[in-house]
This record gives sequence, C-alpha cells and structure tokens, in this order.
Amino acid sequence: MEPSTIAAPILFETDPSQYRHWKLAFEGPVATLSMDVREDAPLAGDYRLKLNSYDLGVDIELADAVQRIRFEHPEVHAVVVKSAKDRIFCAGANIFMLGASSHGFKVNFCKFTNETRLAMEDASQHSGIKFIAAVNGVCAGGGYELALACDEILLVDDGSSAVSLPETPLLGVLPGTGGLTRVVDKRKVRRDLADVFSTVAEGVKGKRAVEWRLVDAVYPKSRFVEEVASRAQELAARSDRPAQGPGLTLGPLKAQVSDDGLTYSAVTLTIDRAKRTADLTIHAPDEPQPDTPEGILQAGDRFWPLRAFRELDDAILRLRVNEPEIGTILVRTTGDPEAVLASDRTLAAHADHWLVREIVLHIKRTLKRLDLTSRSFFALIEPGSAFAGTLFELALVCDRSYMLDDPDRPNVIALSDMNRGAYLMSNGLSRLGGRFLGDPDKAADALAHEGPFTAADALDAGLVSFAPDDLDWDDEVRMAIEERVALSPDALTGMEANLRFAGPETLETKIFGRLTAWQNWIFQRPNAVGEKGALQSYGQQGRPEFDWKRT
Amino acid sequence: MEPSTIAAPILFETDPSQYRHWKLAFEGPVATLSMDVREDAPLAGDYRLKLNSYDLGVDIELADAVQRIRFEHPEVHAVVVKSAKDRIFCAGANIFMLGASSHGFKVNFCKFTNETRLAMEDASQHSGIKFIAAVNGVCAGGGYELALACDEILLVDDGSSAVSLPETPLLGVLPGTGGLTRVVDKRKVRRDLADVFSTVAEGVKGKRAVEWRLVDAVYPKSRFVEEVASRAQELAARSDRPAQGPGLTLGPLKAQVSDDGLTYSAVTLTIDRAKRTADLTIHAPDEPQPDTPEGILQAGDRFWPLRAFRELDDAILRLRVNEPEIGTILVRTTGDPEAVLASDRTLAAHADHWLVREIVLHIKRTLKRLDLTSRSFFALIEPGSAFAGTLFELALVCDRSYMLDDPDRPNVIALSDMNRGAYLMSNGLSRLGGRFLGDPDKAADALAHEGPFTAADALDAGLVSFAPDDLDWDDEVRMAIEERVALSPDALTGMEANLRFAGPETLETKIFGRLTAWQNWIFQRPNAVGEKGALQSYGQQGRPEFDWKRT
Repeated sequence: MEPSTIAAPILFETDPSQYRHWKLAFEGPVATLSMDVREDAPLAGDYRLKLNSYDLGVDIELADAVQRIRFEHPEVHAVVVKSAKDRIFCAGANIFMLGASSHGFKVNFCKFTNETRLAMEDASQHSGIKFIAAVNGVCAGGGYELALACDEILLVDDGSSAVSLPETPLLGVLPGTGGLTRVVDKRKVRRDLADVFSTVAEGVKGKRAVEWRLVDAVYPKSRFVEEVASRAQELAARSDRPAQGPGLTLGPLKAQVSDDGLTYSAVTLTIDRAKRTADLTIHAPDEPQPDTPEGILQAGDRFWPLRAFRELDDAILRLRVNEPEIGTILVRTTGDPEAVLASDRTLAAHADHWLVREIVLHIKRTLKRLDLTSRSFFALIEPGSAFAGTLFELALVCDRSYMLDDPDRPNVIALSDMNRGAYLMSNGLSRLGGRFLGDPDKAADALAHEGPFTAADALDAGLVSFAPDDLDWDDEVRMAIEERVALSPDALTGMEANLRFAGPETLETKIFGRLTAWQNWIFQRPNAVGEKGALQSYGQQGRPEFDWKRT
Repeated sequence: MEPSTIAAPILFETDPSQYRHWKLAFEGPVATLSMDVREDAPLAGDYRLKLNSYDLGVDIELADAVQRIRFEHPEVHAVVVKSAKDRIFCAGANIFMLGASSHGFKVNFCKFTNETRLAMEDASQHSGIKFIAAVNGVCAGGGYELALACDEILLVDDGSSAVSLPETPLLGVLPGTGGLTRVVDKRKVRRDLADVFSTVAEGVKGKRAVEWRLVDAVYPKSRFVEEVASRAQELAARSDRPAQGPGLTLGPLKAQVSDDGLTYSAVTLTIDRAKRTADLTIHAPDEPQPDTPEGILQAGDRFWPLRAFRELDDAILRLRVNEPEIGTILVRTTGDPEAVLASDRTLAAHADHWLVREIVLHIKRTLKRLDLTSRSFFALIEPGSAFAGTLFELALVCDRSYMLDDPDRPNVIALSDMNRGAYLMSNGLSRLGGRFLGDPDKAADALAHEGPFTAADALDAGLVSFAPDDLDWDDEVRMAIEERVALSPDALTGMEANLRFAGPETLETKIFGRLTAWQNWIFQRPNAVGEKGALQSYGQQGRPEFDWKRT
C-alpha cells in the first residue's frame, strides 16, 4: 500500500468565516486576496506549512475566494493577490506534504490546484475580473505558478525577492501546476531562457526577470504598494462588470452524507463499493424557475442551474479524492426535460447579464471538471430522463451513452441553444463540435433538428452510442459495465485522457495532457519518490541518488 | 537494475539484401512492402516473433525500406503495405519482448517506431508517395497502428479479419505507436466509438469498421487483391515524383567504432562516460559541393548535406539506445561556414527537384529526431565553428547555446534561406518562429540581417543564450555542464519535453507529448509491469491483479 496523509474524507466547502490561510478584503472595484498560511493548520498529517507553502486545504480556500468574488461581489473588477507575510510571497506546494502523499493523492492535488488557477484565468478572460500578482517577497515553485495564473506579475526589486521554479534542481520533479507550460506558452519566454530559469534553484530577480518576460515589471520597495494599487485601478477600469452589487450569496450545500453516498437537492451520488461503480443522478427542476436576471438574483443560490451544478461540482470533487476505487460512474438524469429547456431559454436570453454569465461559466467549469476526471462515465438514458439542453452536455461528457429504445415507454433527448458553444471544452471546441470532428455537418444537422429525438433518431444522428431495445437493454448495459470495471484503471486513465480531447490543443489541454502526464510519470520514478529519490530526501542529510539512465 | 533484453549494441543500418522480415518488390509506380516476420530471428533475447509480431529489428528494416523507396526509387509513387502470411496482417509489437525489456528500452522502442510511422506520413504529405495498408488478415495493436500510418486502410471482408487495439483490455497498457491519437485525430473516429473500439479485444470488422471510420473500405476475398492494386494505381497517378529513375543509392555509412565513440566522415561522437557527456561535432564540407540536381545525383550519397545528416541520424539513434547514461550532449560544428551557406543556396535553389526535396526532408526528420531525443543539448559556438544556415538549426535544436565573445578570435554565426521554414518542427513552426513566439519581429529581423552575426550581435538578436568573454568562457561552460549532469534525468526529460514545444500542437506533438507521456506513466505502473501486472502476466495462467485506485 502507498502512504497517504489523508484519513478522513476531504470536504471542499468553505466560506470566508472559516478561512485559515487567506484574507479577503474589498475596497471599491479592487479586492485583495492575502495569503497568510497558518503553519500549524495543515489539512491532515503533521507537516508544517512554513513560508506560505500550501496544501490542498489552502487551495480549497483560494478556489472558494475566487468563486465568491465572482458571484457575491460583482463590483469587484480586479483582484490583487499578495502575501501578508514579510519577504515571502509563497514557497509553493509543501514538500513534506507531497513526500508523504500517495501517488493518487499527489495527482489529484495537482489537478485541483490546476483547475483553481484556470478558474482565475477564466474569470479574467470571460468575467471581467483581472488578477495582479503583487510579488512582495520570495516567490518559488507553486508560488510562481500562482503568479503565472494572474494577468500581470509585479515584483518588488529589493535585491532578494526572486521568482523561481526550483522543482527540477531541488526536488527532481516538475512544477505541478502548469508552470512550464505557462512560462513558454502564456508568457512566451524564450525556450533557452526558460531552460535556464527552470534549472536555477535561486531563480531570477530584478531587471533580468523583466527582460526574460518572467514578470511584467519590478518596482523598488518604496513604490511597490502604490504601483500595485495604481495598476489594479487601471485594470479594474476596463471591466464590464456592474459598478455595484447586489451579488448573489453562495450558501452551504447541505449534502446529506451516508455510508454509500451523498444526497443534495438536485444531485445524488450513490456508491456501490463491491461493484466499484457509482450512480450519479441529476434532477431537472421540479418547480418553475425565474426567467429574468432580477428573478434569478432573488432566487439566489436556489436558482436551479446554479444549485444543480454547484452540487454536481462538489460531488465530483469529493468522489475524486475520497473514493479512488470507484472507477465507473453511471450518469442519469430525471424529471421534466421541458423544465431544463425552459431554464436554458432563460440562460440564453440573458447571457450578457453578469450573473447569468457567471452561472453559465460555472456550469462550463463543472462540465470541464467532469471531462478531466479520470473515471469512466457512461450515460444511461432511460424513460423519465431529462437529457435536454444543458443536461444533455452530461451525456456528451460521457465516454459512452446508452439510450433505451422502447416504443411502449417514450424516452427522448433534446438539444437547446446552450449546446451551441456555451460550454466549450478545455480544447476550445463545443462538445458537439468535438464529437463530430470528422463530420461537422452532423453537428449542424443535430442543432437544426426541431423538437426532441427518439432513441432511433438520436442513434441515427450520432448523439448516442447505442440504443438497445427493451429485450437487450439490461444485458447490454450490465455487460458493458462489468467489462469496464475489469479493465486496468491506469490504462483507462491514459486511454480516456487521449480519446476525450481530439482536435486542437490549448494552454489548458497542454497542462492536463502533456505536462501532467509527464509529471505523473516522474511522480512514479524512483529518482523522485524512491527511498533515495530527490523528493524523499529533501530536507534530510545527504544528496539524492539517481539512476542516471535517460528514457 | 531493470531487466534488459539487449546485450550488444544495436545497429540501425541495414539494406534489402540483409532484410529478414520484409520483402520489397517493385512493379512500375507501385512498390509492395510485404511483412513476413521470421519467428526465429528476434533482435536479441529468446522470444519468438509469432504471427508477424515485431521488435525493434523488424522496425529498423521497415524504416530502411521507406527511406530507400524515397531515395533509390523515384519512380515509386505508391506503396502497398501487406502481409506475406496467410490470415494474419500483423499482431503488433511482440508482448514477450516488451515484458522482458527495461523501461528505457520500451520507451525508446516506441519512440523509434513512432518516428518510422511519421516518416511514412511525411513521405505521403511531402514526397508524393502514398501508402495503402492492404489488411489481408488479423490486424491487431501495433499492426493496426501501422495501417493507421498509411493513407488508406483496405480490409478484407472474410468474416474473421478485424482491426483492433487490444492493448487496454489485454495488456493494461496503451497502444504505443500513436494508435489512440490517430483514431480520433487523423481518422476522426467519434470518441464514444473510439472508446468502445479501444476496449474490445476482438476489434471491429466488416461494414461496421467502415461505418466507424476505422478502415476506408472492405472487399470480399475474391476481389481484394484486384481492388488494392487498382486503388494503388489511382493514388500513384496523382504523384509529382518523376516517372522514372535513376535514384540515388544509399551506401553504408562505415562508422569507425571505438570504445568511446563513433567517427563518420562528417560527424564525430565522443563519449565521456565518467562525466556522462558526449561531444557531437558536425563538420562543414571540405570540398566544393555540386550545385545542380544532376551533379548531386552524380555525387550520390557523398553529397555533403545528405551524408552529414545520415551520419548524424545514425549517431543519435545509436546514442539513444546504446548509451542511456549519457545525459548531456555538447554540440559543435567545425569548418568553413561559407561552405555550408553555399550548400544551402543549392538546396534552396532546387527545392522543387525530387532529390533535393528528399534531402531537405531527411534533414528535417533528423533535426526532429534531435528535438525528440530526451537528452540535454548545449551548443558550444567557438572560433572555427560553422553554425551557419542548416547547421545553425543544430544550435536552435539545443536547449541552450553558448557563444564565445573574444575580439581576438573571430567567431560568427549566420542564417540562410534554409532557416526560413525548410525544417519545420513537429509542431509545425520553424525553429526561429518557435524561439521568438513572444516576439515574432525578432525572427523577421534576424532573417533580414545581412551577413554573419558576431557574438555580441547574436546575443542582441536573441539567437544565442549566452556570450561569455574569453575570461569567463571556460568556467561558465564547465559550470553549466556540471550543474546539468547533476540534475535528475527524469525531471530533465519531462522539463525538456515541455519547454521544447511551445505554441501549436499537431498530431505529431500529441503523439510524443500527451500519448507517449501517458504510456510511459503506465509503463511504470505495477498494474502493467508489476509481478501480477497485465503485461507481465500475459500468456501465463491466471488473470492480472490490479490495484483498483484511479489516479
């Protein structure tokens, strides 16, 4: 068995009143997010979070803070990310936490931190919220990767504060949160300079950091706070967010937890540990939903699309880290498809309203979280289901879909305007576009189709994988699941990561494909995690011992 | 220590008179490449190559055959790839060879087979040679991946012949030669169908294989040979290759082998095992080179650009598999830069001639082989060097370059028209374009520069990483090398794979980045290579035992 620092289930819900590591302050259009990690408050285990180093608990708070700024503070147009500690911005992920973690936990930790950084970039690109990293001290590894996720990096020029990616020279691993990709692809640092930068433990500071494009500007200590504030005002002034609130308060999700799953208001997750499967069901709205931005604001976090996808997001995060052996997820929907289509009409009609935009972007991020979850997903489309519009995206997320074709029990799917590209995948394609890469007319035809699709129509249109009849359904679905759960979980992880993202690549898919895959490879290597590997021997006496063979 | 099947050094040179596994036949514009693997002729070890399964030895012959068709047979416009065995096309890479191989050998084996498949696609895209896979029997795993590298896949419809990728269900690994990527990205198979296909060991045959886009056509056995021949003629008719020869004969390279390296006519590789470095030096032409296609044909394989890059290609291949511990390669050039520029003028002036095109494409593939070699490359630009035009691409390949700036000993680099995009990288960018992704004007300025660059000019133009003066040179270079060789070889492999390919992604970079990285990860996992892993337990009694945790 691999070691794991995690005994109790990890929860992803928090709110500012519970933060232990971050302080969130507001002043007009600028929010300040100050990192002040409590050394003695690790998520689990007995490592100490020195020098603003972080673990998953720190990142869960950061993700929550960004989410709340988006929804609860529409008047915020720029965010300054800084450290509340003296001379240290952030030392990156805690090495002792990593050294004590299982392979699977390390991988899932990096996946979540990557998603948090990408959520910041999503807010910058789509929500009108710009981020400034005010690097007021040493900024190493994951600390610099946090800065890289911001729109601009301002570095104090105090003779000692440097940015660095010391993972390769110090730890024998790669920066785990997109660092290498963002250096050459986002900031477009020249590859030879990136090579030098990534192998020099002490990093680069001052003017050279600007010349090499590693930071946007350096300022002397005396002017730093003032320059940061002034730049934040400039960026904030360009936003299209409202000048003032009210925002929408994100209340607790109140999941009911039982031994075999989680029950929310619109989502249930039921785990079958013996079979290593889970049933994930999303319920269409039971009651009429508001159809104006004002009505949505009034409904608040009870508005169905936001509520259902916040619950889904929470469920999938908890499944990822707390239930590693559950390899196959059976996705169902229930309720009235018309209610989903009505909700979609509201989202489409008010797409430009800041709050509707945030809700749609949240759904998009949740769907991407599913795309990136290394579990097999099968959609089961049965009578009584509601795979329409936004909920049909769930079927498109799945590795396969089975739709019951039984003339005696009507069973339909439907598309809406929300399937046209509101929820782009990491690779920049809509799910229909990606599905029909070889036959783009099919995507257009499906979107032009009037009304719902029967199982036969859906099969013909290429929208589902299989449409067994009543006689075959039980056996075919049962056998497909039995065959899937028997396959090597590692081969499936690699296979799905390759088949799910055909077509173009983006910074985002490069991070989750190329970079993450290499990092995971390294995380398995004796040179990193062996007894004398670099990650294990960090902070101890003696140097790591390497097998020098290159592969 | 990991097991390895390889005791003696592996050689990559061969010719049709030595082939043990392939037969090459010519009939007018169509060549037929018949796979007929000799069971009892493995490259090394005691596995048997049953059912047209292959090892590196089989692939070395395939690579040679494709190369000779390009150079020696300009009259060939289409190639039919078939099996000489009954009812079996190819069973893929030999499992027992894989099971007995070290991790590093598996990775390098897959890299070479990938490069061979990509060379076929390169010939199709750029040389006017189309490939047809005539799948006249069972076509599994690497067999189907070989077919996927062809332009068209024609399958016999005999009730049993199927195409399949059984790696995940049977072996707990991924297809290692681009299979998953080509299925969804090249053939654009719908992702849910690709998911089913990649998990069904028996594969897909007949009409369904066509419907799913897995093959282009199926024909009954009675018509198969005739349909293949007729399609080959059709494809051949579209070629812009000459109607007849003569071609250019690729003679043996005659490397002189010593304990510490290889000496060719224009390339020397000297290994320092204690320091784990190698000196790789390429010599500019000493004598005037022909400047017309006729002259080049007459010079044959002695024409310097072809000769130098064939030698370089051979040297790097041998280094990869035979010297895994040599982690840092110091790249130098010697001779008259003007002679390289003169040769470049010839290549540029006659770029449309079939032979010059082949030579340039060969140089391009060799440079890509360097890009993809997981060793650190440092260019050392010293007085007497010839980093001009095509040879300057070698400096651009390198992770870093150091250029001596000593007014007393002139030392220059130069660009030519061959740096404008004749040698595109795997990602479709020129090396100058990729280098200056953040500042495209710099690439244009460098190309517009008249005459050679001094060290100061080159540094200013961003063409070299560092330009130490005479006082600093020795220490700076020595320290850079010492620091490099001390780093984790695995972290460097991952770091270089990420920093070298900024910008767009292509089928090719997806195969070497995303797919290969995941495959390498899986190749390390106990679920594949552990005592009870799927790869180890294949062909033995009992099923593999998996750790079910997903990562």
